[in-house]
Amino acid sequence: MTELYDVAAIGNAIVDVIAPAAEEFLGAEGLSKGAMMLIDEARGVDLYSRMAPGVETSGGSAGNTVAGVASFGGRAAYLGKVAKDQLGDVFAHDMRAQGVRFDVTPLAAGPATARCLINVTPDGQRTMCTYLGASTELTADDVDPAIIEASKIVYLEGYLFDPHEARRAFAKAAGLARANGRKIALTLSDAFVVERHRGALMEFIDTQVDIVFANEAEVCALFETPDFDAAVSALAARTAMAAVTRSEKGSVIAAGEARHEIWAAAVDKVVDTTGAGDQYAAGFLYGLAHDRSLPVCGQLGALAAAEVISHYGPRPQVSLKDLAASRGL
Amino acid sequence: MTELYDVAAIGNAIVDVIAPAAEEFLGAEGLSKGAMMLIDEARGVDLYSRMAPGVETSGGSAGNTVAGVASFGGRAAYLGKVAKDQLGDVFAHDMRAQGVRFDVTPLAAGPATARCLINVTPDGQRTMCTYLGASTELTADDVDPAIIEASKIVYLEGYLFDPHEARRAFAKAAGLARANGRKIALTLSDAFVVERHRGALMEFIDTQVDIVFANEAEVCALFETPDFDAAVSALAARTAMAAVTRSEKGSVIAAGEARHEIWAAAVDKVVDTTGAGDQYAAGFLYGLAHDRSLPVCGQLGALAAAEVISHYGPRPQVSLKDLAASRGL
Repeated sequence: MTELYDVAAIGNAIVDVIAPAAEEFLGAEGLSKGAMMLIDEARGVDLYSRMAPGVETSGGSAGNTVAGVASFGGRAAYLGKVAKDQLGDVFAHDMRAQGVRFDVTPLAAGPATARCLINVTPDGQRTMCTYLGASTELTADDVDPAIIEASKIVYLEGYLFDPHEARRAFAKAAGLARANGRKIALTLSDAFVVERHRGALMEFIDTQVDIVFANEAEVCALFETPDFDAAVSALAARTAMAAVTRSEKGSVIAAGEARHEIWAAAVDKVVDTTGAGDQYAAGFLYGLAHDRSLPVCGQLGALAAAEVISHYGPRPQVSLKDLAASRGL
Repeated sequence: MTELYDVAAIGNAIVDVIAPAAEEFLGAEGLSKGAMMLIDEARGVDLYSRMAPGVETSGGSAGNTVAGVASFGGRAAYLGKVAKDQLGDVFAHDMRAQGVRFDVTPLAAGPATARCLINVTPDGQRTMCTYLGASTELTADDVDPAIIEASKIVYLEGYLFDPHEARRAFAKAAGLARANGRKIALTLSDAFVVERHRGALMEFIDTQVDIVFANEAEVCALFETPDFDAAVSALAARTAMAAVTRSEKGSVIAAGEARHEIWAAAVDKVVDTTGAGDQYAAGFLYGLAHDRSLPVCGQLGALAAAEVISHYGPRPQVSLKDLAASRGL
């Protein structure tokens, strides 16, 4: 089978609503800073009514990542479910306009397109409340075998462990990928997701996953230890490759016994950290699909993460291909 | 009647879709750079399909201005029509979250909330295509006399000369304002609007308007002359006060024989000029409502314009009140 795509991603298709917020707002609303919480529609309406004026932009972790892969010049496809509504149209437009293949049929009746209410504090940290809406209606039937079989890497969100049907969808995708000798990559997504689904995530990593992305909090949550190095080693023992991000301290890539420490790329001012991990994964996966060395993969990830945290919104606002070229990567 | 509001604005209630575009894109699409063109829904769908990934943000010229007035700490109300749909909800949220009174009943059936497709070229210039949708359904019945009578200044968009019913709405507002001794301000909005409605605009200015906002192209279009100074003098002869913006050359305030030249405020990098004129008007009107001198009104306008062109989107992303305080204004 011809490799048509560098990366095919499956994720919760979400439109972000991003607004600035004071630290006190998080406390008053009972929000856990830096985390992602699931909310129902009523809570979403209620919380939104107290948020500041915002901007709306296509999001969703894996959606952000494939948008980044495409911005690097890579070939990417996306599988996720929006509703047939205005925000669903926006999501589909943004995917296709970025050059990402996206042709999952939108949900004609039922819940609205998923929304993530993101409160950004003055330090740039984002705190997310997600109403999953139509994104939970993604089913195994939406996973087109032709796309999975033609993709070098299949990328999955840990967030997908929350909606029940999505687990069947990505089990199907993982099976197809495995059968066709494709790589499977997974991001742990969020420390609370790890807490909710530790056993299932661990089993999935042990049996199916080639590449794991995580941040410091997530890898420590997975192995229930505060010892970062021990957690990375534990993860490296269970998967072929792990890339663990540490905000301004850069990232660590572990492959077997080997360790590569990657510096964070410089940023003038951190405006909004939404999408930092997603864009790190984009650079890393693009590099991997194009046979770059692991340190270069990490540097591409660091570069993309630095771009995205310098402005509001989880997707690149410049061509990452041009940006990488300007840095000699 | 107690003055509850500094400014009540009537405008086309629009959600902006802002995306970067190459210069060549404008030519290929037959778009006139820097102008606002009206399009129908079909053309909107067609053009959107070829635009880059974007962000969605509440817009509309007068809506942007009252958002700016509120950001300065002023009291403001807005009259405009959205549909009962997702983008209408976003528009209403953003108004109220900024502290602007907005309680016009959304349109339950009929066209969708108005959208303005904005292509931003690398020089920061914006070119706008507007599908007026539900905004054209604003009627005189939507103009609450209690709001108009309680506002120091009633602010109207030249854009309102396009939809037929809106002219009745603002004729009602102007009559109420006049009867209660309130000031009436008008922005000419766009040189093409001036071309389409020169006679009606001129008559309205002559008979009703106290304060006119325009940019260089608009004032020259109104008097059909390339001579800027002559155009400003012609305008000053017909209205009590005129504030004419000239991009990086600053602005000129004319009041009778008096002229005040105001410098543009410094900007590190012009990202997106959408909303520059609207925010200039916000600063000017806030100053005027708070009895500041005309040069200070112009400086407040220049400061707000500089803030808004330094990022994507037509409304302030910081507190203009704090910004003004930091500059000693």
